[in-house]
Amino acid sequence: MTTRTTYRAVVATAPGQLELVERPVPTPGPGQVRIEVEACGVCHSDSATVEGFAGVPYPRVPGHEVIGRIDAVGDGVHEWRVGQRVGVGFLAGEDGTCPSCRQGDPVTCQNPVITGMTTDGGYAEIMLAEARGLVKVPEDLDAAQAAPLLCAGLTTFNALRHSGAQAGDVVAIHGLGGLGHLGVQFARKMGFHTVAIARGANKAALALSLGAHRYIDATVEDVAAVLRSMGGARVVLGTAPTAQGMAQTIPGLSPRGQLVVVAVPGEPISVNATDLIFGARSVAGALTGTVADNEQTLAFANLQDIRAQVETFPLEQAQEAYDRMMRADVRLRAVLVMKPSSPQHP
Amino acid sequence: MTTRTTYRAVVATAPGQLELVERPVPTPGPGQVRIEVEACGVCHSDSATVEGFAGVPYPRVPGHEVIGRIDAVGDGVHEWRVGQRVGVGFLAGEDGTCPSCRQGDPVTCQNPVITGMTTDGGYAEIMLAEARGLVKVPEDLDAAQAAPLLCAGLTTFNALRHSGAQAGDVVAIHGLGGLGHLGVQFARKMGFHTVAIARGANKAALALSLGAHRYIDATVEDVAAVLRSMGGARVVLGTAPTAQGMAQTIPGLSPRGQLVVVAVPGEPISVNATDLIFGARSVAGALTGTVADNEQTLAFANLQDIRAQVETFPLEQAQEAYDRMMRADVRLRAVLVMKPSSPQHP
Amino acid sequence: MTTRTTYRAVVATAPGQLELVERPVPTPGPGQVRIEVEACGVCHSDSATVEGFAGVPYPRVPGHEVIGRIDAVGDGVHEWRVGQRVGVGFLAGEDGTCPSCRQGDPVTCQNPVITGMTTDGGYAEIMLAEARGLVKVPEDLDAAQAAPLLCAGLTTFNALRHSGAQAGDVVAIHGLGGLGHLGVQFARKMGFHTVAIARGANKAALALSLGAHRYIDATVEDVAAVLRSMGGARVVLGTAPTAQGMAQTIPGLSPRGQLVVVAVPGEPISVNATDLIFGARSVAGALTGTVADNEQTLAFANLQDIRAQVETFPLEQAQEAYDRMMRADVRLRAVLVMKPSSPQHP
Amino acid sequence: MTTRTTYRAVVATAPGQLELVERPVPTPGPGQVRIEVEACGVCHSDSATVEGFAGVPYPRVPGHEVIGRIDAVGDGVHEWRVGQRVGVGFLAGEDGTCPSCRQGDPVTCQNPVITGMTTDGGYAEIMLAEARGLVKVPEDLDAAQAAPLLCAGLTTFNALRHSGAQAGDVVAIHGLGGLGHLGVQFARKMGFHTVAIARGANKAALALSLGAHRYIDATVEDVAAVLRSMGGARVVLGTAPTAQGMAQTIPGLSPRGQLVVVAVPGEPISVNATDLIFGARSVAGALTGTVADNEQTLAFANLQDIRAQVETFPLEQAQEAYDRMMRADVRLRAVLVMKPSSPQHP
Repeated sequence: MTTRTTYRAVVATAPGQLELVERPVPTPGPGQVRIEVEACGVCHSDSATVEGFAGVPYPRVPGHEVIGRIDAVGDGVHEWRVGQRVGVGFLAGEDGTCPSCRQGDPVTCQNPVITGMTTDGGYAEIMLAEARGLVKVPEDLDAAQAAPLLCAGLTTFNALRHSGAQAGDVVAIHGLGGLGHLGVQFARKMGFHTVAIARGANKAALALSLGAHRYIDATVEDVAAVLRSMGGARVVLGTAPTAQGMAQTIPGLSPRGQLVVVAVPGEPISVNATDLIFGARSVAGALTGTVADNEQTLAFANLQDIRAQVETFPLEQAQEAYDRMMRADVRLRAVLVMKPSSPQHP
Repeated sequence: MTTRTTYRAVVATAPGQLELVERPVPTPGPGQVRIEVEACGVCHSDSATVEGFAGVPYPRVPGHEVIGRIDAVGDGVHEWRVGQRVGVGFLAGEDGTCPSCRQGDPVTCQNPVITGMTTDGGYAEIMLAEARGLVKVPEDLDAAQAAPLLCAGLTTFNALRHSGAQAGDVVAIHGLGGLGHLGVQFARKMGFHTVAIARGANKAALALSLGAHRYIDATVEDVAAVLRSMGGARVVLGTAPTAQGMAQTIPGLSPRGQLVVVAVPGEPISVNATDLIFGARSVAGALTGTVADNEQTLAFANLQDIRAQVETFPLEQAQEAYDRMMRADVRLRAVLVMKPSSPQHP
Repeated sequence: MTTRTTYRAVVATAPGQLELVERPVPTPGPGQVRIEVEACGVCHSDSATVEGFAGVPYPRVPGHEVIGRIDAVGDGVHEWRVGQRVGVGFLAGEDGTCPSCRQGDPVTCQNPVITGMTTDGGYAEIMLAEARGLVKVPEDLDAAQAAPLLCAGLTTFNALRHSGAQAGDVVAIHGLGGLGHLGVQFARKMGFHTVAIARGANKAALALSLGAHRYIDATVEDVAAVLRSMGGARVVLGTAPTAQGMAQTIPGLSPRGQLVVVAVPGEPISVNATDLIFGARSVAGALTGTVADNEQTLAFANLQDIRAQVETFPLEQAQEAYDRMMRADVRLRAVLVMKPSSPQHP
Repeated sequence: MTTRTTYRAVVATAPGQLELVERPVPTPGPGQVRIEVEACGVCHSDSATVEGFAGVPYPRVPGHEVIGRIDAVGDGVHEWRVGQRVGVGFLAGEDGTCPSCRQGDPVTCQNPVITGMTTDGGYAEIMLAEARGLVKVPEDLDAAQAAPLLCAGLTTFNALRHSGAQAGDVVAIHGLGGLGHLGVQFARKMGFHTVAIARGANKAALALSLGAHRYIDATVEDVAAVLRSMGGARVVLGTAPTAQGMAQTIPGLSPRGQLVVVAVPGEPISVNATDLIFGARSVAGALTGTVADNEQTLAFANLQDIRAQVETFPLEQAQEAYDRMMRADVRLRAVLVMKPSSPQHP
């Protein structure tokens, strides 16, 4: 257990503003654990907190891709112990009593704990989390590389494995950023005929190195036409937040094909009914997953040697990391590192 | 077999124009049958032919909700015989050789026979059809009432039973016209908690008489809010060709809910990604079905006492029937009747 | 809240033996509620407790089809209040921490509270239950008729709606006892072409009165042959605990058809691989459901006017009720009634 | 087109007996093609023909894993031309008119052409086939290695990709013979956590070399216990024709897990209802696939570098090849080779 009495955290205080503060170390409440944070990814969804969207109140510590180690446990926590390595993702505690939870669908819980939004998150040396929201993290994963798997990884892994696409099917990943570069790796290792779609010839080498069988440069190729020439995509995973870019892939879907949206563009997606009806196509949203899903994401990445490509920043450079992420000027995922990965406590 | 040498048909000759003509009775080619038509429904999709959309060439006989009796069979037709009562729907002959057909998905055949578009349809006393596109029709069905089941019925029946909705789920039918009034009846008899959505207080009585548990008047109620107050709709079946109306139902879907589009609005449907992602919702198109699906539609309607509400017209009033259908001024489905339903040939 | 200090309960004390005892009224623990029991069904699964199977220790109060009213609530219970009408079924509290629960599948929880087995059940005037295991019960349901819905009803309703069968499909219910007579009613109201299979001509009238379109008397008809003559059953729901009887239906399944087993026969089911492979058929087990599923069962039964046929017994005749149930000599479900259904507390 | 007037074929003439004969070269009928055979696999299902099971009449040429090249086309064949490389599998021509076909499920056609059973198969230098039953074969596949993919490959590939198992799930292949050794390779490349189950320590090296993450030696390990220690298998693919061996895996399935049976054991599989019900498990049969499925099998194997391990035999040693296959004394699939793989005709 930590002997320190204070810790450093980065809090959002005004639109676009992050501030480094020192706080007293808290005591975990009933059902909670305290975590010494090793690393925390910087995700585009953090902007909901930092920019003050969606009613998130200032001050708030952002960050929902947290890798760390349990430092203290609260009352009633029996399944976890001090010293265990754990992760905390976006959805980190269903309420257990809403209609979705009572039906066995905690992912669509109507009143969830959302890390960095309803509670303080992982841009900090210490954080509290609900025990039921914890993810077991293997000891042999590097914290900085593993952190993005807890949201960007889970989102793309779960969306792909639940998409209905089957081995050998053409699956296209639209976008090659933080989510997309993981999506391409997952798709390849799931046995899909993997296509990467992005903008610019300079992305081709990256796409192929990640395992794509085919790269489509949307600045010079007709995306839908290329997909159709391959028989149509059974699934397009939309990770680039551009409504027009996603919509343009719909006519490239195979019969019964589906566009799965995981990124939120600023504008509505414009969908032609004829594209849907003639071909029985669909457009769906996909939303992260359970704590078990997150453990399966880590296990799959570990087994298949899938790694996030990250740029790391110390906690005191959180503002820079955030700003560069918002400008899409990071290769390919920004991660704050609070302490180097450590061997398990004896 | 008919002893006549000519028959009357109605052909589209220019945008919006239908003309009654007399033609020599044709001989069915290999794999075809000749049908004496009893009745043919007037469907909004006929406008693709009549208005010259989609490259359909003039002159062409519209009509793909055909009930009749086999009058002659061509070479190689072994499964059908003269005197059998049959129907012909929209998709009336897959090519058998395209990727969809070879995969066992004739509904998305890439080169299908489309009655009234690629071949002459049922606005006529006599028509030819591919034997593989025929639907068996029970003797005890009234031709005028059964005709709309072959397209409006099949479309809504198949969309609903394949929608993933389960008994007891809230299922809403958006629109109360030719498709919608059948959809409400099907939904009720499938055990769904059935909601009808339309415009105007004067539709309430119709909705409830068809079996709806709840009517939502979109002119005075917030459709999505009402659906949410019921727990959200697991499925909304979009039968009213209004993009805005369909889009407004999406926030009323339950988690994992789906808007199933079967009507083609003139404009794209505008879909918010956040509505899809948070709730894992989707928007899908559904497209008629196989000949077996059509027989199952008729069998279900027969077993469950589901009937189309029709206004009938003689063949020579096809122009009026079409015009009124296009003005949505028919209650609730127009049907051309060429001969009264008849007992089976001895 | 009750003012009494003791209550009567029936406990299993030795194989086949039930004994009426008087006990002090308990105080609900944290997360629990105390219930004044109105009625409790007598289910064949109670034999696991009464006969001492499966390691259930004596003394134990059996009964997992409980209808009652909350009489007191323990610490931390915020979603329920004194006076609410509730039910308690077989699975009445997942552990929340096992792999199944963390995945969002509480129905296969590996360490569940099982009413009447891991805790005292409903053969009593008073019982304790976990708040998370409670089922909301509409005020207008009769307690004795509603009680069997909480296990026999849930089991058959859930199995049928999750079976993959679609409206119009042939669905056969094998057995016409406590489960089967509910299964037939559910199947009919879900829009299935409903078949009832039982032994003896004297069951025909019951089957048809429950809504079956066809009754098969297994003592004189070839069950599989009859099903095949109808095109094959998409689903057979096996509610009669006879391995041979269930196995004989398999060749009567349609291609892609499934036998869904909900009753436990004394012997293994003998399955021919050729019947499975040629036709891509399957045999599956189905296991009750969540608390939300149970509320949906009640809602569906209420909406569709589905009722259990019961024989009622006062608590002191529990031994007789149990013995007759075990001899299959009850028409059609035995229910203990502790107090008449009552209007809600003011 | 061949200039020869006779060809050699191997025909079954009595139980267990194969005979080499010389026959005149036939002319393809309408809808047929004539094929110069390069190679044909020897499958255990050939025993239905050779041993005279299932009413197959002598004399009959067995063999349904055929790779060859079109040598002549019959009337009405427009999609295929002389010189194309093609394959012929087990199901090689649905009737198109049975209920399954009309529903769009040709795999369960009730009156199919079955190569080597209803028509002469590929133990021959020349054979006839229905054009609609042909599979496109890439030029770069070796005929002997590709032949087993057309049945053993298709069966295992299709069963696995349609099984509902998702990337990262534990999937076990029961048996390591002709089917199993392909199943393990497919499972690994689909991203499953792959387990191989067979008998004997000497199979371990083979299992791991094919890509299994874990080998279970059923002669010394408790198969179900090992699977449970891994969290349970989402899918077990039963390729070893032993009813007891397959049944023993059922308790090793995870909740909602499924045993998929593709091999036909001599005895029924004995299934405990409690194993099915508590855990909602199932046992299903899987049956080859469509011609498009077969092309997808070849494409996936080609893309993922999956190869059958074969022993080749000239046509005149068909009896020896068959006998050794029946004794399970071949490593791992016997293939008759009639002519070396050839470049495409100019």
